[in-house]
Amino acid sequence: MKFGGTSVADMERIARVGRLVAAEVAAGKRVAVVVSAMAGKTNELVAWTDAAGAAAPGLAPSDEEYDAVVASGEQVTAGLLAMTLRHMGLNARSWMGWQIPIITDDAHGRARIDDVPGEKLGAAMDTGEIAVIAGFQGVSRSGRIATLGRGGSDTSAVAIAAAVGGQCDIYTDVDGVYTTDPRIESKARKLARVSYEEMLEMASLGAKVLQTRSVELAMAQRVPLRVLSSFVEPGEAPGQGTIVCDEEDIMEKRIVSGVAYSRDEAKISLFGLPDRAGVSATIFSKLADANINVDMIVQSHARSEGAANMEFTVGRRDAARTVEIMNGAKSEIGFADLAVNEDVAKVSVIGVGMRSHAGVAKTMFTALAERGVNIQVISTSEIKISVLIDAEYTELAVRALHSAYGLDKL
Amino acid sequence: MKFGGTSVADMERIARVGRLVAAEVAAGKRVAVVVSAMAGKTNELVAWTDAAGAAAPGLAPSDEEYDAVVASGEQVTAGLLAMTLRHMGLNARSWMGWQIPIITDDAHGRARIDDVPGEKLGAAMDTGEIAVIAGFQGVSRSGRIATLGRGGSDTSAVAIAAAVGGQCDIYTDVDGVYTTDPRIESKARKLARVSYEEMLEMASLGAKVLQTRSVELAMAQRVPLRVLSSFVEPGEAPGQGTIVCDEEDIMEKRIVSGVAYSRDEAKISLFGLPDRAGVSATIFSKLADANINVDMIVQSHARSEGAANMEFTVGRRDAARTVEIMNGAKSEIGFADLAVNEDVAKVSVIGVGMRSHAGVAKTMFTALAERGVNIQVISTSEIKISVLIDAEYTELAVRALHSAYGLDKL
Repeated sequence: MKFGGTSVADMERIARVGRLVAAEVAAGKRVAVVVSAMAGKTNELVAWTDAAGAAAPGLAPSDEEYDAVVASGEQVTAGLLAMTLRHMGLNARSWMGWQIPIITDDAHGRARIDDVPGEKLGAAMDTGEIAVIAGFQGVSRSGRIATLGRGGSDTSAVAIAAAVGGQCDIYTDVDGVYTTDPRIESKARKLARVSYEEMLEMASLGAKVLQTRSVELAMAQRVPLRVLSSFVEPGEAPGQGTIVCDEEDIMEKRIVSGVAYSRDEAKISLFGLPDRAGVSATIFSKLADANINVDMIVQSHARSEGAANMEFTVGRRDAARTVEIMNGAKSEIGFADLAVNEDVAKVSVIGVGMRSHAGVAKTMFTALAERGVNIQVISTSEIKISVLIDAEYTELAVRALHSAYGLDKL
Repeated sequence: MKFGGTSVADMERIARVGRLVAAEVAAGKRVAVVVSAMAGKTNELVAWTDAAGAAAPGLAPSDEEYDAVVASGEQVTAGLLAMTLRHMGLNARSWMGWQIPIITDDAHGRARIDDVPGEKLGAAMDTGEIAVIAGFQGVSRSGRIATLGRGGSDTSAVAIAAAVGGQCDIYTDVDGVYTTDPRIESKARKLARVSYEEMLEMASLGAKVLQTRSVELAMAQRVPLRVLSSFVEPGEAPGQGTIVCDEEDIMEKRIVSGVAYSRDEAKISLFGLPDRAGVSATIFSKLADANINVDMIVQSHARSEGAANMEFTVGRRDAARTVEIMNGAKSEIGFADLAVNEDVAKVSVIGVGMRSHAGVAKTMFTALAERGVNIQVISTSEIKISVLIDAEYTELAVRALHSAYGLDKL
């Protein structure tokens, strides 16, 4: 069971989490609970580290110390929930990342889990003890506290489930995964099941239910994953939520399972590029060196003068840096003009059924064209189609696609 | 160097601590810094643990979890100070209790330090790295976080100084140890040196500069101790403070070094006790079983009827429990009446010179008698005399004694 920051925001909510855990124990389950920091606490801690760093903004930040500070938030919640459970008459204890241990690499602030030896934890759970685990953190091989980056508690939970052999239930402020954002389309339906692949695309395309890395890990380790609500009244059951599982375990196949959108994009356009080999290699290796992820790319060749244009998208927070890097290499790349557009949105349809069904793209383009939505860039994978459009049309496009694929009639 | 909660209360004060550390490093010292939680943080954490326990007040508290929660405060400060020092261009890293390790017993919430293997820490410091250590915490042999009880950071600091072989400077909100509380006697003088034995008596008699256990440990391990102020402006030096050392290292011997007082006492009187052997054994073994410390004791025999009275003092927070225990054993002890007086104060004069000088008690009793202060109970040790008086006379008595021993003319 994993509970995020809003589910443990105060002692009353921690008591509610306690009741949900007790119900699972009463149902005969062997339970480990992974918790985030109380909502707001991580921000408070990060603000202090920013203040500590403000003295000398030129120097490299000390990520080990950032991690030591920020990881304390989850330590507090784990201790408080273990206390709460014990006061409910249950057998429970807290575990910090270093106590299990959750072994990570040295990439402090965004560490990856290398290994979770489950023996000690499993043995404690075998005695009937509920394990309450501080999420988001581990310990590097050199013995320093390391954090997994924002949202890392989902990944902690999946890693623990894999280590002790169990199912991973992610309790959150929504009661499952929806066909699209219900705040935009009131006809959005909760999915009973969704495949790992689809969930992965949804997560990376802007649906903020689960952290992408946690889904990747669950898929790789074949951990059954479930998303359900922690916001239930005493005595009420949390419902079935949405099960994230192998494609083969989904009986009713859908062509499209969901419509996702993201407004965190920026489009960069380079005009008048020389039409010769190696130009795009220069552009994208410069961005890769700066650790900037490029998402959609389209290259167009001007018919006459032997010059080309290149358009690509980056995360909006990287836009300014991208422009700086491009302008700094203007003569090397050889472009004539550059434009940035932050007023764009990416809208995507996702579904494993695309693999075996033709006409999915046609339905998408037709539906958007009928509403007068102009498509600026297109990118596709085996199970999704994304389009970049003017941000103003986001809601219109989401609703049009939700209806075009019959998702409101599930 | 050890800094308490008020010295690290916010990022501005942590920056000030950073400058004090930098000055020591610049002077060629090999530095370890022990820090408390930011002022107020421990109280916030304790309040949460209280709320977690409120659900079932009958159950035993889970002290391991209390420790996991409360120890996070020092972890945050250690990380923040290490970051601050690194941003000042210094080489520093944070150390939690479990990383050094500071090994404690299993008495969670009031653990005692068993061992501090100094090799790892010493080796890191030998490379020129400043060690920033979370105070107040260690790790039990079973691998759980354990805290040392309130004020435990002083003890952490002395233990670290002993482990790596150094002097222990306790930075606090006063600039040294005074002959008495300057809020009561404006003529109080700062002592340049005070012996471990005297400091120990002062700490246990109500002077709140150092935790008693830290002085005991410093005396046992022969760690040179110093008390000085952390509240200095940028560029200003913290002064020499007060050195706590062996009696032999104090050139100018004083008969009395200080006057201490405590208002945390309560006097219990038992009247009409049978005048036979074993009565006092019964009384004090009942209190010992309940873990109640008895301080001053006086027994008086009524001349005629073969009955005796007994008066003793306990900590004020134990008064109600003491009364309960006495009344519960009334027939067994055989007293006729019981009285409690919480309106008392203990005033003490302390000085190693008492060992070799007569007349110290006479000066005390005369000075108090001249001011009309009635002495209720007296207790003495080799280097102190304490009297219990009506609380109303506390300030008057402190000033009278301060003057009677010439402490205002030091």
